[in-house]
Amino acid sequence: MDINAYMQTLGAAARQASRVIARASTLEKNTALQAIFDALVEDRAHILVANARDVEQGKAGGLDDALLDRLALNEARFEGMLEGLRQVIALPDPIGEMSDFTYRPSGIQLGKMRVPLGVIGIIYESRPNVTLEAASLCLKSGNATILRGGSEALHSNQAIAAGIRKGLRAVGLPEAVVQVVETADRAAVGQLITMPEFVDVIVPRGGKGLIERISREARVPVIKHLDGNCHVFLDREADPVKAERIAINAKTHRYGVCNAMETLLVDAPVAGALLPGLAEAYRARGVELRACERTRAIIGDAVAATEEDWYTEYLAPVLAIKIVDNLDEAIAHINQYGSHHTDAIVTENYSRARRFLAEVDSSSVMVNASTRFADGFEYGLGAEIGISTDKIHARGPVGLEGLTSQKWIVLGDGQIRQ
Amino acid sequence: MDINAYMQTLGAAARQASRVIARASTLEKNTALQAIFDALVEDRAHILVANARDVEQGKAGGLDDALLDRLALNEARFEGMLEGLRQVIALPDPIGEMSDFTYRPSGIQLGKMRVPLGVIGIIYESRPNVTLEAASLCLKSGNATILRGGSEALHSNQAIAAGIRKGLRAVGLPEAVVQVVETADRAAVGQLITMPEFVDVIVPRGGKGLIERISREARVPVIKHLDGNCHVFLDREADPVKAERIAINAKTHRYGVCNAMETLLVDAPVAGALLPGLAEAYRARGVELRACERTRAIIGDAVAATEEDWYTEYLAPVLAIKIVDNLDEAIAHINQYGSHHTDAIVTENYSRARRFLAEVDSSSVMVNASTRFADGFEYGLGAEIGISTDKIHARGPVGLEGLTSQKWIVLGDGQIRQ
Repeated sequence: MDINAYMQTLGAAARQASRVIARASTLEKNTALQAIFDALVEDRAHILVANARDVEQGKAGGLDDALLDRLALNEARFEGMLEGLRQVIALPDPIGEMSDFTYRPSGIQLGKMRVPLGVIGIIYESRPNVTLEAASLCLKSGNATILRGGSEALHSNQAIAAGIRKGLRAVGLPEAVVQVVETADRAAVGQLITMPEFVDVIVPRGGKGLIERISREARVPVIKHLDGNCHVFLDREADPVKAERIAINAKTHRYGVCNAMETLLVDAPVAGALLPGLAEAYRARGVELRACERTRAIIGDAVAATEEDWYTEYLAPVLAIKIVDNLDEAIAHINQYGSHHTDAIVTENYSRARRFLAEVDSSSVMVNASTRFADGFEYGLGAEIGISTDKIHARGPVGLEGLTSQKWIVLGDGQIRQ
Repeated sequence: MDINAYMQTLGAAARQASRVIARASTLEKNTALQAIFDALVEDRAHILVANARDVEQGKAGGLDDALLDRLALNEARFEGMLEGLRQVIALPDPIGEMSDFTYRPSGIQLGKMRVPLGVIGIIYESRPNVTLEAASLCLKSGNATILRGGSEALHSNQAIAAGIRKGLRAVGLPEAVVQVVETADRAAVGQLITMPEFVDVIVPRGGKGLIERISREARVPVIKHLDGNCHVFLDREADPVKAERIAINAKTHRYGVCNAMETLLVDAPVAGALLPGLAEAYRARGVELRACERTRAIIGDAVAATEEDWYTEYLAPVLAIKIVDNLDEAIAHINQYGSHHTDAIVTENYSRARRFLAEVDSSSVMVNASTRFADGFEYGLGAEIGISTDKIHARGPVGLEGLTSQKWIVLGDGQIRQ
């Protein structure tokens, strides 16, 4: 099979289907999502068998436990998938929203209309639940999707895709509204990201290396998430109780997530009061501490942090700690070493809170709250297609709105340019 | 001189300056713009002399008349530049706008804050007035800029840049807020578009070839304008007076602009009534007509249009005309052959107007108004850095808001994730 020709066929079909789903009404889209729900319930046994086959092949192929865990669909995960779909059905439809209409001096009435992006290509790891989640978010936002999951999940994805097609057929929508790339050939990705005539935006999900490579080679815009090197700064006027709650929660609530704190910054005047108790609490939870010299002088046997530590997203029970002289140093450190993802200050001081909010250049900036709140569900987006570390288009958690665009609408009565 | 090292020096200085200008108050930014205004008035003679030198070298180097015209700054153009700067000073400051604050069930209060993008690289042709326009829009929106104009305008740009620096110094802002690339070496562009650590977004202005090359090679997001193949569709229920006014204005008001109509689509039932008068009016204005067979049968000696004509942005007194059977065919034609820039329907029919607005996939969609309205001044943006034909981030005319981003703000009282 010629991979490029195959991908172009998918692309052309997606482009055509995107015109149909773009003008589908909210009721049509919700009915389609419900039909997909019903089809998946009907196909449950079949999908779980296909998934078991993937897991078995993965084990035989030597996949590590973490990857196998992400690959496996059990009854509970399947229920979770369905529950996610139910939530997408319940979300308000962003498409067609008209806003900001005003009359211009020429007499034209100018406003905006929210519209789908068109065709969205999603590239992700071997996580079958992402197949349904991404497909349903794209469909709800009026977009056609081409899904390219990890090759280890190919049978699971094919089975889920068959269910999705069944649902689309049941309501008379083109099957090409959601297409799964049915080949494990890696050349498919190279083609998918270089067809601007058929694909409007690429959303890669996965490891940093993969995402960097896709961004480098793509010929269409990429909504991407690189790393989450998040900070909490304990200001000299931090409430000690809030400081401890937030510093512990941001690090230890979950370790392998992008919104976990990786570096704790402590204002010098309160370092002596706050750090001993915090260090004890971290150690009790098995968190390894890597600290600057001033911190080590206070808390004892922490590992000496290197320059590299300030840049590192550990995604593990490891925390870097640094004492800074003041707010300026904290902001400068975050903007220099951070990844512009999520950063928080703990303080009761109004002016410093305001400066931190304005000057920290991150997609989410917080006062007296745990960095762990930075996600689509907590932000009320209902679900997220990812968290963007880009500044343009969508920044931070990306929900349905990030999969849309606004076009200008001009309503006239025959006006011409003078 | 090592061009890459030189560009990285500019980049690092811009990144640092961007932190300063990002937190400047509206008053500070307006004062800086006023100081730049005063410096340019003071340097007027010097700038005009430098420009005369560029024009002379351009003539000697064989630049064509159109390019020479764009390059030349006379007193009137200089006044126009200053007037544009006055308007930017008068625009509201988009930075710091806080919006959409709501409480989430967790108790956090979530909203958005509008912030600068950071460092913006502008690549443009030999048009010295763009230097000031781009610099002032970027400064007002809190961004640092690196400007790379055409080499034929180097002396003019250096003289204008000196005035801008004088203004920045006068108010104590870093000179690196606005930097002009002071080398004609083309390698500078290659480096400017591949420094994601220093440059957040590139705005290219110029020919399609240049913009396509920059988009292909850039390693940072590009806000770009490719072509403007705009359409007017005269529906069967078009008011004949509005139809003629708009069809004539959209084509003949100015020929070399991206929002001029390039193809006229006419609904079959009214073609016989509307086309003869229109053809006469176009011919009287010297517009060459290239038409489908059905049109030629009505208006006589038009050139036969080829498939290529439907794709073409003439930017000249040439118009393609096609009769379509109905609204569906008109929408399909526009979405297939158009450039998703600006398209208009003329009709008194409510339902077809609504369908046209929803289904035409262009950055500006109009009812009963001339496509010529699609620009930043007419839309009230005050000025525009360009017209985006992209779907993501900024679509259509891009003013100050397109040079900004929104970050999420979370205000808490010690909330942690459960």
